[in-house]
Amino acid sequence: MHIRNSAKSAVTVLGLGPMGRSLAGAFLDAGVRTTVWNRTPGKDHELVARGAVSASSAEEAVRASGTTVICVVDYDAVDSVLRHGAVTEGLRGRTVVNLSADTPVRARRTAGWAAAHGIRYLDGAIMTPTTTIGTPAAVFLHSGPAELYQEHKPVLDALGGTHTHLGEEIGRAAAYDIALLDTFWTAMAGYAHALAVARAEGVGARELAPFAQGIAAILPGIFEQVAEDVEKGSFPGEGNPLTSAVSSMAHVVQTSEAHGIEAGVMRAAEGTARRSVGLGHGADGFSRTVEILERGTASSTPPLRG
Amino acid sequence: MHIRNSAKSAVTVLGLGPMGRSLAGAFLDAGVRTTVWNRTPGKDHELVARGAVSASSAEEAVRASGTTVICVVDYDAVDSVLRHGAVTEGLRGRTVVNLSADTPVRARRTAGWAAAHGIRYLDGAIMTPTTTIGTPAAVFLHSGPAELYQEHKPVLDALGGTHTHLGEEIGRAAAYDIALLDTFWTAMAGYAHALAVARAEGVGARELAPFAQGIAAILPGIFEQVAEDVEKGSFPGEGNPLTSAVSSMAHVVQTSEAHGIEAGVMRAAEGTARRSVGLGHGADGFSRTVEILERGTASSTPPLRG
Repeated sequence: MHIRNSAKSAVTVLGLGPMGRSLAGAFLDAGVRTTVWNRTPGKDHELVARGAVSASSAEEAVRASGTTVICVVDYDAVDSVLRHGAVTEGLRGRTVVNLSADTPVRARRTAGWAAAHGIRYLDGAIMTPTTTIGTPAAVFLHSGPAELYQEHKPVLDALGGTHTHLGEEIGRAAAYDIALLDTFWTAMAGYAHALAVARAEGVGARELAPFAQGIAAILPGIFEQVAEDVEKGSFPGEGNPLTSAVSSMAHVVQTSEAHGIEAGVMRAAEGTARRSVGLGHGADGFSRTVEILERGTASSTPPLRG
Repeated sequence: MHIRNSAKSAVTVLGLGPMGRSLAGAFLDAGVRTTVWNRTPGKDHELVARGAVSASSAEEAVRASGTTVICVVDYDAVDSVLRHGAVTEGLRGRTVVNLSADTPVRARRTAGWAAAHGIRYLDGAIMTPTTTIGTPAAVFLHSGPAELYQEHKPVLDALGGTHTHLGEEIGRAAAYDIALLDTFWTAMAGYAHALAVARAEGVGARELAPFAQGIAAILPGIFEQVAEDVEKGSFPGEGNPLTSAVSSMAHVVQTSEAHGIEAGVMRAAEGTARRSVGLGHGADGFSRTVEILERGTASSTPPLRG
């Protein structure tokens, strides 16, 4: 019972990269007793000056608090810290909140390891940059046992921002994370490429930016519509059929490559759209490509269609 | 002088696909005398019922007004309508406003043809769907002689929305169009792929959508920052270095392909980011990839760096 009661008032942070330091700083600012540790020493000076307790080993660190928050580069790094006899033993009966980023499969494996060692386990994802931590702009996603999440909500709230519990299935936070990273980094790759092409055409990056912001502004409404299409399984192309999208994409590829700028991202996007057209869906909207991607890769046999 | 004076009050619309019909409808709603023609007959019934004059040939159509607006699938289609003896001759001394979409190179070629035949020429791009035409939500980009644009501004204003003259260089509207289509369709491809991966992980499309909208909402600020980095030639990675982006991208590819969902778009984006890391820029921000794309394709020799 001692451990449970201390969960709200004491936390250990493992991993003191930029994000780990921000998390520890937010706990300190919220008055939470915070113990810190990093594999490479020397990263905790500023935190100790702000009141953090510096642990001399990972085992000592996890034994100092009922809750350990770990945020390292990926789950290989998580394993190399936690999956050692003394550390694993020290965590028995305590809670690990894993805010490192990786795949849903890895989250499920880590949860399996935790269960096998009597360690209570929540998995989470941080969706916003280090600068948002401790502010209302931070966005955290969590998954795992609802009761465990509720118990730790007070200490998690010390990190600021919004926290969403996505469900008990432990891979769910990582699944959302992956899908949102997919959305984000693809959009970023498209914009970076657009800037390169625009500049090759004599259009300055800051000249293009306001118009690109206009494109970003119309995405939320379209995102909602595409999600509705996908759930209904109906892909209306009214006024903007796939054939027209494919034509636009081809113009982008041509213009890019004429300037010697590789267009692999758009070539791949065009390939999926053209495959959809080739399967007889040229009059459908772009949302049809979701269903085409779900049918499997080009090498697999698509189901026969009327 | 007769032709110039009639520019504000009479317009011909060539091409009656969904966008051409919307343009003609907006002119009619604004009280502009509108003559319409389409290569395939039978598309003008509704417009004629609303007051449009139906021309029996393209030549007759262009001779009916001082200004001809053409909006067809691409510039091959433009050529096949305009570059015929009688039509070209009919346009002499008149103005063509080409709102069809294609590449900057094609816009420049069409302007060259127009100049050689004494045809006044403006090139433009429509950035918003057919449903926005005639409303404040429509966005039009234009390029070509400033005086010619100013003269035709009143008739263009009948189409509603905002009109921006981007400069005298005739390819400029198409260049912006290409870069913005690049931004838009890449983002859409990323979101479609994210939905497919999310659904494979048991996350519903409408469950993911609000979070994806949150991602779209942070893009404008990031777009501005990236444009600044690119113009300054400085690519700070503070808190979000390319090495971290590459790790996220790899997680997306792994998760996607584990579900049999091809990840060509993200693979291509990851390739460019990894090339940037391989050239020694792993600690830089993602904006560095713009400069890497501008250096040329992977097969060309990158400049030596210290």
